Amino acid sequence: MIGKVGGGLAMYQAMTALGHAAESRFMGPPKLGGARAGASVLVLGAGLAGMLAAYELRKAGYKVQVLEFQNRPGGRNYSVRGGDKVVEIGGATQTCGFAPGNYLNPGPWRIPHHHRTLLHYCQELGVELEPFLQLNHNTFVHRKTAFGGKPQRYKELAVDFKGHVSELLSKSLNAGSLDDKVSAEDKARLLEALREWGVLDKNMAYAGSLRVSGQRGFDSPPGGGPNGAPTASTINGLGDVLDSHVWTQMGFFFNYVMQTTMFQPKGGMDMIGKGFAKALGNAIRLNTRVTKIAQDDKGVSVDWEDAVTGQKGNSTADFCVCTIPATILGQIPIQVAEAKVAAIKALPYSNPMKIGIEMKRRFWEEDYSIYGGHSFTDQAIGVLSYPNYDFFTRKPGVLVAFSSGTGGYELVGMTPEQRIEAVLAQGSVFHPAEFRKEFATGTSFAWSRMPWILGSCARWTEETRAQHYQNLVSIDGRIVLAGEHASHLGCWMEGALLSSLDAITRLHQRALAA
Amino acid sequence: MIGKVGGGLAMYQAMTALGHAAESRFMGPPKLGGARAGASVLVLGAGLAGMLAAYELRKAGYKVQVLEFQNRPGGRNYSVRGGDKVVEIGGATQTCGFAPGNYLNPGPWRIPHHHRTLLHYCQELGVELEPFLQLNHNTFVHRKTAFGGKPQRYKELAVDFKGHVSELLSKSLNAGSLDDKVSAEDKARLLEALREWGVLDKNMAYAGSLRVSGQRGFDSPPGGGPNGAPTASTINGLGDVLDSHVWTQMGFFFNYVMQTTMFQPKGGMDMIGKGFAKALGNAIRLNTRVTKIAQDDKGVSVDWEDAVTGQKGNSTADFCVCTIPATILGQIPIQVAEAKVAAIKALPYSNPMKIGIEMKRRFWEEDYSIYGGHSFTDQAIGVLSYPNYDFFTRKPGVLVAFSSGTGGYELVGMTPEQRIEAVLAQGSVFHPAEFRKEFATGTSFAWSRMPWILGSCARWTEETRAQHYQNLVSIDGRIVLAGEHASHLGCWMEGALLSSLDAITRLHQRALAA
Repeated sequence: MIGKVGGGLAMYQAMTALGHAAESRFMGPPKLGGARAGASVLVLGAGLAGMLAAYELRKAGYKVQVLEFQNRPGGRNYSVRGGDKVVEIGGATQTCGFAPGNYLNPGPWRIPHHHRTLLHYCQELGVELEPFLQLNHNTFVHRKTAFGGKPQRYKELAVDFKGHVSELLSKSLNAGSLDDKVSAEDKARLLEALREWGVLDKNMAYAGSLRVSGQRGFDSPPGGGPNGAPTASTINGLGDVLDSHVWTQMGFFFNYVMQTTMFQPKGGMDMIGKGFAKALGNAIRLNTRVTKIAQDDKGVSVDWEDAVTGQKGNSTADFCVCTIPATILGQIPIQVAEAKVAAIKALPYSNPMKIGIEMKRRFWEEDYSIYGGHSFTDQAIGVLSYPNYDFFTRKPGVLVAFSSGTGGYELVGMTPEQRIEAVLAQGSVFHPAEFRKEFATGTSFAWSRMPWILGSCARWTEETRAQHYQNLVSIDGRIVLAGEHASHLGCWMEGALLSSLDAITRLHQRALAA
Repeated sequence: MIGKVGGGLAMYQAMTALGHAAESRFMGPPKLGGARAGASVLVLGAGLAGMLAAYELRKAGYKVQVLEFQNRPGGRNYSVRGGDKVVEIGGATQTCGFAPGNYLNPGPWRIPHHHRTLLHYCQELGVELEPFLQLNHNTFVHRKTAFGGKPQRYKELAVDFKGHVSELLSKSLNAGSLDDKVSAEDKARLLEALREWGVLDKNMAYAGSLRVSGQRGFDSPPGGGPNGAPTASTINGLGDVLDSHVWTQMGFFFNYVMQTTMFQPKGGMDMIGKGFAKALGNAIRLNTRVTKIAQDDKGVSVDWEDAVTGQKGNSTADFCVCTIPATILGQIPIQVAEAKVAAIKALPYSNPMKIGIEMKRRFWEEDYSIYGGHSFTDQAIGVLSYPNYDFFTRKPGVLVAFSSGTGGYELVGMTPEQRIEAVLAQGSVFHPAEFRKEFATGTSFAWSRMPWILGSCARWTEETRAQHYQNLVSIDGRIVLAGEHASHLGCWMEGALLSSLDAITRLHQRALAA
């Protein structure tokens, strides 16, 4: 029976029972069996969900056509390079000026090791991957109200945080205040743990020393010869460490989707979309704006307009996999149950932006020993990321400011020129002597201003999910929706792919039953 | 004045005062100025310290000759590849059977981002670097007495550890037992920190939940479509977590020399030694066993024997940089002060070993989602490391068992065949179904059984350093010692290089004053 039930749940449960890691729902490519002779599927949207659906359905024997609004396949799986145009609603147009080989991944930019579906198809499509260095102990944490606004190295704050936490808990344990909660045996072992992990001294105090500097860094690091002895650095007090809110970053790195090892495609994230598109060849029709989606007992009928020529057209098929983002789909007449239309319209999208800043010189590597990773700030830009490719080269490098939440709204509201100025001003906090001096060119990407999506990705709340999710993902006649928004792994490529595999598996069962 | 004083200390202090990171003593290549016409230096040992000394002294105008005992340059900067022979004292000989492209770095294998000297010369010599993935949340922690001997994923134990620590400290804070030590304001902020960092629930308890699973992993991870909802994993109790001693690994990753980002040379660590050797060309005489080191007012005189032909010879020069490891140098008559001889003889070397195990299939990647990093055990092998190159390929991969301390002694005492069997038995703890099945070939490298070094690297204690270090590193007449043992950064290539730069800077001053 294992592996026969749709969605792979039975196999998943069996695998888990056998002791395998429960890391992914992915159990290998779908075993769809053969399609009925001549059965056809129309796929709307050539993002990853749409292209995977087309790829696997065609393998199963379906006749497949993909309609894509943009002049390129890939959707949010995209990389902006020198010469590329970024056109926003309202008309603001940027032409990216990056040097050859450089890019900005405006959407997805990192792949967790447990996103097995995506990793599987990268291998199948020959997409070469390299490490994305998520956790870098040597980057900065900046908070306007901490340390007089001066950024601190993550390692120093994190080591100090665990030191103070260890000292305080040790004091409580030794004072007996947790004796009703911790057994005597565990108490002794926990004290041992806190002494080692927190690097406490023999009095169970967290204090500056060479041992502590062996984690947080030295004032004068060890060297060679007669003057090689190191000197200890000074620790920060508890209050200063709390000012920094470093626990947010310490927790961030423990998020399952942020844990090491992470990867990125060599040469840009869009290598994945390009891999799918190459495999699909002329099954994708670009520049095709869907204007109406209808269905009856016999099949689906989709009206469209060529975005370049204005030509109107209509495509029909037995079934439809619709991966158009909810933000856009909500504006297109679609013949499905009211509850599904309500679900589509109820789904808010997040509004982040990324700004790629090309610097003439890789000063973060040469002057700061920072290779990949992120510096964090409570300014609007939020995160400043360092590139994970071309390390140690003399090539220009692209730093990425990633802004979400209120910071994102603030930056999106600016002109492209103002956004660059904001990044230069805010990024200078981390690298004051270099940031403006080495600036070459910048390109910003505001997701809510992209006419083809009007946002970044679906942000279900517990309430909206309870009310609308099942309505969104259910098959309606001959139409099924797929994409990251139709998954519990929203805003990740893996969610889009898992949704797609689930949707086509159900659609195939529906097709065989029809 | 900046930069003029030997050893770069003044520049170092000035840089620190200017607000630069105190990450390294390295202030760029030494500015030795010109040597006196015809001045010559004999360098003993073609490891990194010796080759760097020769490289920079030659640049400064010295006539340089390097004598090396082995039949290859590089010393401990070495990579064992298919076809290479490993010959131990006692005669045990292994011929490495690794597939093309695979290697074992028996000595140094990772480069911290703050080892600026090494990184500088890698760039100068054109040695390409790639990330060494030190911290991998998805590897295993195994302890014979924990979890019935079943290894646990690091992420699960680490998340549970910080959860329990946060809950306990919160309880103490809320009970008021730390009110005399933490201000009311800090107490409120620390509680906020513990709730977020420890992923505590609204009652400040650490309990299994989807939020907690968002860090430690899910029982059933999020997926797509109707059945995509995740289910929470079950947390481990405090006692079980303490059984695992996971705090040791949590602290290990915070060691300054172990912090991300780390690097390795593409293709094997010996690319660095080969880079130096190529630059030095025929200045290196291989197979040359030094038998006596003498000096007088006029110069140094070194007797040697060709290890292949038996030919005896003598080389002379104005000065000598001796980088022969203390274990070997202690057996060679050397004309220096008694205190220096005593220092040489007093220095113990560590006794670790590495065993490279080539597997036919990269099952750790395919079946366990482990890409680089280390699994930890309290068995003799200590650490099982996963390769950081050829990810996602179908090529065979080399796992590395790294054993030090008592485990190292245990394994060194075995025959090469017994060591492989020990690794297969102990490594099977992590990968029971695959470890023996996929085994192809293995090569072990026992440092204390290598005739050219008889150990791995210098292990100064506080006491031996206080008594002997200055005597070891001082210039004696025309002879200066250099190498990792003559630094405060022992067992690291960076220590060898910093020691070398310091030694030649002092020797150059001595030479100009002579």
